[in-house]
Amino acid sequence: MSLIVVGSVAFDAIETPFGKTDKIIGGSGTYISLSAAKFSPKVKVVAVVGEDFPQSDIDTLKKHKIDLEGLQIKKGEKSFFWSGRYHNDMNSRDTLVTELNVLEHFDPIVPESYQDCEYLMLGNLAPSVQKQVIDRLKKRPKLIVMDTMNFWMDVALDDLKETLKHVDLLSINDEEARQLSGEYSLVKAAKKIMEMGPKNLVIKKGEHGALLFDKKQVFFAPALPLEDVFDPTGAGDTFAGGFIGYLAKTNDTSFENMKRAIIYGSAMASFCVEKFGAERLLSLTDKELDERVQDFIDLVQFEIELS
Amino acid sequence: MSLIVVGSVAFDAIETPFGKTDKIIGGSGTYISLSAAKFSPKVKVVAVVGEDFPQSDIDTLKKHKIDLEGLQIKKGEKSFFWSGRYHNDMNSRDTLVTELNVLEHFDPIVPESYQDCEYLMLGNLAPSVQKQVIDRLKKRPKLIVMDTMNFWMDVALDDLKETLKHVDLLSINDEEARQLSGEYSLVKAAKKIMEMGPKNLVIKKGEHGALLFDKKQVFFAPALPLEDVFDPTGAGDTFAGGFIGYLAKTNDTSFENMKRAIIYGSAMASFCVEKFGAERLLSLTDKELDERVQDFIDLVQFEIELS
Repeated sequence: MSLIVVGSVAFDAIETPFGKTDKIIGGSGTYISLSAAKFSPKVKVVAVVGEDFPQSDIDTLKKHKIDLEGLQIKKGEKSFFWSGRYHNDMNSRDTLVTELNVLEHFDPIVPESYQDCEYLMLGNLAPSVQKQVIDRLKKRPKLIVMDTMNFWMDVALDDLKETLKHVDLLSINDEEARQLSGEYSLVKAAKKIMEMGPKNLVIKKGEHGALLFDKKQVFFAPALPLEDVFDPTGAGDTFAGGFIGYLAKTNDTSFENMKRAIIYGSAMASFCVEKFGAERLLSLTDKELDERVQDFIDLVQFEIELS
Repeated sequence: MSLIVVGSVAFDAIETPFGKTDKIIGGSGTYISLSAAKFSPKVKVVAVVGEDFPQSDIDTLKKHKIDLEGLQIKKGEKSFFWSGRYHNDMNSRDTLVTELNVLEHFDPIVPESYQDCEYLMLGNLAPSVQKQVIDRLKKRPKLIVMDTMNFWMDVALDDLKETLKHVDLLSINDEEARQLSGEYSLVKAAKKIMEMGPKNLVIKKGEHGALLFDKKQVFFAPALPLEDVFDPTGAGDTFAGGFIGYLAKTNDTSFENMKRAIIYGSAMASFCVEKFGAERLLSLTDKELDERVQDFIDLVQFEIELS
């Protein structure tokens, strides 16, 4: 099934204890699309870049079979740019630069050829822009997944709550779940957030894995214990892309299949952190992905026979 | 198989956001024994209390089939006492009072009737005392598990490293693993710690579950997502008690069986936090335990068929 990915396609400049990059391709839409494209051959992007965005990066996305008809290129404007520096523990970072540029007035245009899409992934963007995309689809997709972050809870909470009413699944991290719900217990937080609209909730806990909720069940997926995390940038988006890419490929939105999708998303994220930016995603083979998923199975499988 | 548990048998006074207790029975030896006794009918305690320790608490332990021949009662002295207050998030606490009392000069006497034990659990105590118990056993047990805490890394690191050479498995939390190894990555920390002696390492991550390592494999057990944590006191010891109790009952120290033991330990710990102190462990039924283990299975099980 085809999948629309809305998000930022942008430049990042990253510093970690292991080194630093110049401006490289980044953004939620980039990571989600590259990760989803590993599963689904019909990933269609809605995004905006400036005139400064290099043709070589556009070619890279196209080479990975990503449909860029919905990528607007704004003459005379600059692409969104973020720069950050990770601390030694790699779990916290300082933002050094945020230049909204083309994102400041992003009007997400949905091409006619995208209208038949069954899956919609709303990557991290202003909630009002996410909502616009939903409104511009003539037929509601089978599944709408929304990612967001604490920033929008601080500056656009009402918009965020409005968009939340229209999505099927929200994907946020543990601190964001606590902020959005006002509950410390993630179980209580999940209940409150699902009352705001989404039937399902994914709570990402970084190195501690992820939880998937519906109103009756909970599933826990671990993160793979890694020797080194080289660069965490984009791991959450890569997780989301693998998750919805797997669902779109299998066209099954049951809780059981979402479990599998979370394992695939976690496997994709575990590759993402191995190199700077999206570099590792570009070279990833199917065989490597299968082996990594097997690592996840080995990590958590046990057999207990209850009487 | 029979199991020796060495640890503190003591008084705790606990304050949480939900209320406070007077002096109640606590201590690593108490939690470990009560938890292990759920599995193994031959739990033998080596510990010391003062004259102030009530007969009713001794009767409680005996009622749970715990052998107290190795429990010394010191006339004219007072039992170890700890008091603490948990913060609102229940993940951090302040120690209000620590009175070592009888623990200050604890000479762990191992009764002759304990000498045939196959399993030894060294609960949190001075590493030199833990080592003394090993030295006083005529035959080395099949499995020696050691628990410790950051306090001993601060004040008795050499003793701790010496004891570590003689144990099979060390159980510590993530921050302690980082402190002991000087490595932030838990995978790297595990490698370094296993080079210090133990063939296996358990890293407890509280609400984020636990990792089991040997030199070639890693297993991850989740913690059950809970609506409320009422009182975390003793959860780590209850986990350790369930772990070694299950191993002693099944008399199988393979990695596969250690996985099952960790799930049982995690299930026991999930009960412990439901009420103050050890209260919930005292009322726990086999049926409740089976149901909880099923919850763990449901929480992590998924099916993926790789080609």
